[in-house]
Amino acid sequence: MSNEIITLSHGSGGKATNKLINNLFYKYFNNEILNQQNDSSVLPLINGRIAISTDSFVINPIFFNGGDIGKLAICGTVNDISMSGAKPLYITVGFIIEEGLEIDELEKIVKSMADTAKKANVKIVTGDTKVVERGSCDKIYINTTGIGIIEDEKYYYSGDMVQAGDCILLSGTIGDHGMCIMNNRENLGFDVDIKSDCCLLNFLIDDILSVSKNVRVLRDPTRGGVATTLNEIIEHSNISIEIEEGSIPVKKEVSAMCDILGLDPLYVANEGKLIVIVDKDDASKVLEIMRKNEVGQDAVILGKAIDDGKNKLYLKTKIGGKRIISMPDGELLVRIC
Amino acid sequence: MSNEIITLSHGSGGKATNKLINNLFYKYFNNEILNQQNDSSVLPLINGRIAISTDSFVINPIFFNGGDIGKLAICGTVNDISMSGAKPLYITVGFIIEEGLEIDELEKIVKSMADTAKKANVKIVTGDTKVVERGSCDKIYINTTGIGIIEDEKYYYSGDMVQAGDCILLSGTIGDHGMCIMNNRENLGFDVDIKSDCCLLNFLIDDILSVSKNVRVLRDPTRGGVATTLNEIIEHSNISIEIEEGSIPVKKEVSAMCDILGLDPLYVANEGKLIVIVDKDDASKVLEIMRKNEVGQDAVILGKAIDDGKNKLYLKTKIGGKRIISMPDGELLVRIC
Repeated sequence: MSNEIITLSHGSGGKATNKLINNLFYKYFNNEILNQQNDSSVLPLINGRIAISTDSFVINPIFFNGGDIGKLAICGTVNDISMSGAKPLYITVGFIIEEGLEIDELEKIVKSMADTAKKANVKIVTGDTKVVERGSCDKIYINTTGIGIIEDEKYYYSGDMVQAGDCILLSGTIGDHGMCIMNNRENLGFDVDIKSDCCLLNFLIDDILSVSKNVRVLRDPTRGGVATTLNEIIEHSNISIEIEEGSIPVKKEVSAMCDILGLDPLYVANEGKLIVIVDKDDASKVLEIMRKNEVGQDAVILGKAIDDGKNKLYLKTKIGGKRIISMPDGELLVRIC
Repeated sequence: MSNEIITLSHGSGGKATNKLINNLFYKYFNNEILNQQNDSSVLPLINGRIAISTDSFVINPIFFNGGDIGKLAICGTVNDISMSGAKPLYITVGFIIEEGLEIDELEKIVKSMADTAKKANVKIVTGDTKVVERGSCDKIYINTTGIGIIEDEKYYYSGDMVQAGDCILLSGTIGDHGMCIMNNRENLGFDVDIKSDCCLLNFLIDDILSVSKNVRVLRDPTRGGVATTLNEIIEHSNISIEIEEGSIPVKKEVSAMCDILGLDPLYVANEGKLIVIVDKDDASKVLEIMRKNEVGQDAVILGKAIDDGKNKLYLKTKIGGKRIISMPDGELLVRIC
């Protein structure tokens, strides 16, 4: 289909829509559930409670160092499902496409989604495609909604479960995704090679939950970064958290770019990092298993939960100071996911 | 929050995002599942197989005679779930909002979604909000994904179940939604009062399934209209269908407007109509119960499935002719859902 572009007729519901669905979506996403071809898809019986999550992806640019909007849309929803301790099973996909998008580009994105779904061991079971006129969307937006099964009802991971004394672990370097996207935008041109950390976290979580029954929270610090995620957990659990500046892993290039742009990496988005809050007695074995996983090899203990009645996030600086890191105000980086 | 507008900071994940979520989404969508406030929501146990459906809504204008994008986004997904014979239970919502949208307008839409969800007896269990720069979206796009439970495993409704001799029923007048939207767009100004048929179909389906165990297909003829939906079923079931022109209910105003625009109402979108294909022996009792329901009072028997080996949709015209109605080619009306 090379050199062809998406036209309004691809969104009309008629012949062109059918051709697109058959030649592209069914070709790459092919499975017996999707092939039911009805208004809704009926899933095999799920023997347990379900976790559900939805996310729309509006990232600009749609192709970046380390991924593309398709990979991101699958990883993001698989990861969100996994944060409940659930095993991701099924994903739905909603495309909003701007008239004029090259079908070759769409095919790359669809292939990337199919590859990532296969790696994550999830099936794409139903979808929807809308086409809007030029100027009514920026190339392509993708919504993914995922469902997973809670396999062990005894355990529950939630932002309100943190207790004073618990350890805060982080799976690796921060700010890679946000700074990659900033660097990949046409109007910037830093001479650095920063790769997005966009990746699947479900298998890392499997590893963690196999060694500890005392995990309180699993959360991926995406939009708003580590600072925002920790502040949300603080509000939810009614505790404070203290983190050590010296323990925060930041790549040299990311740190340098943040300096130039006047950004704090703690607020910059990640797409393949995990925050784990766990009973302090299990922290070292969780850290150990995380470091054995490819996507957790730079894992660290970032700090701990404390009960000072103030519900604040404190940063203990390298030079011995202590400052409050609040929820971010105003606009951060836009369209980074 | 009057006179305020959506800014990029509402999509940043920071304070403004939290305020919007708390003051608007949690306020109207309020329920114990949504209030988990985690990356994914854990649902109560569903004792049966699940039907799942996703749809993105990009309609222009966002407010129209008979509804708005919010009502449409709930009805559309509730209806698609119901077409599997499933009882809709839960809905996820993904907003993509253009910078500059008035918060008052967003509130109207959110309230409309909450009201419609309540009527449908479904809960909005998780969501996502993205804000894009002016010009990167047209006011607001909404994705809804729904899940429902198949309560009776013995029955299965699918486009491939049609047998020769089955009756094709239609719940009422066609083309109302598409022509309402065309008429509501600024660049047209027909002096007619056409109201969209946007409505919930789940209770009409409950009624139908309570009187017949021999329903083959339930389908709502939205984008592409009755002609497209019937053509899809024909391909899927490997039969032909014959419909009677004289039996097709079309409102006078819709018919007149279609004439002027050179459109065939058979291809125009509906958002509150149902096609039922049922064993001929049950057709009259299904028709009777449909007519007792407010949203099915103009129901008719449209035609029948035949086995001529040709997989075509035939229209028997009022003057005794017979012509083939094919899948539509090229662009129909755009952004009508």
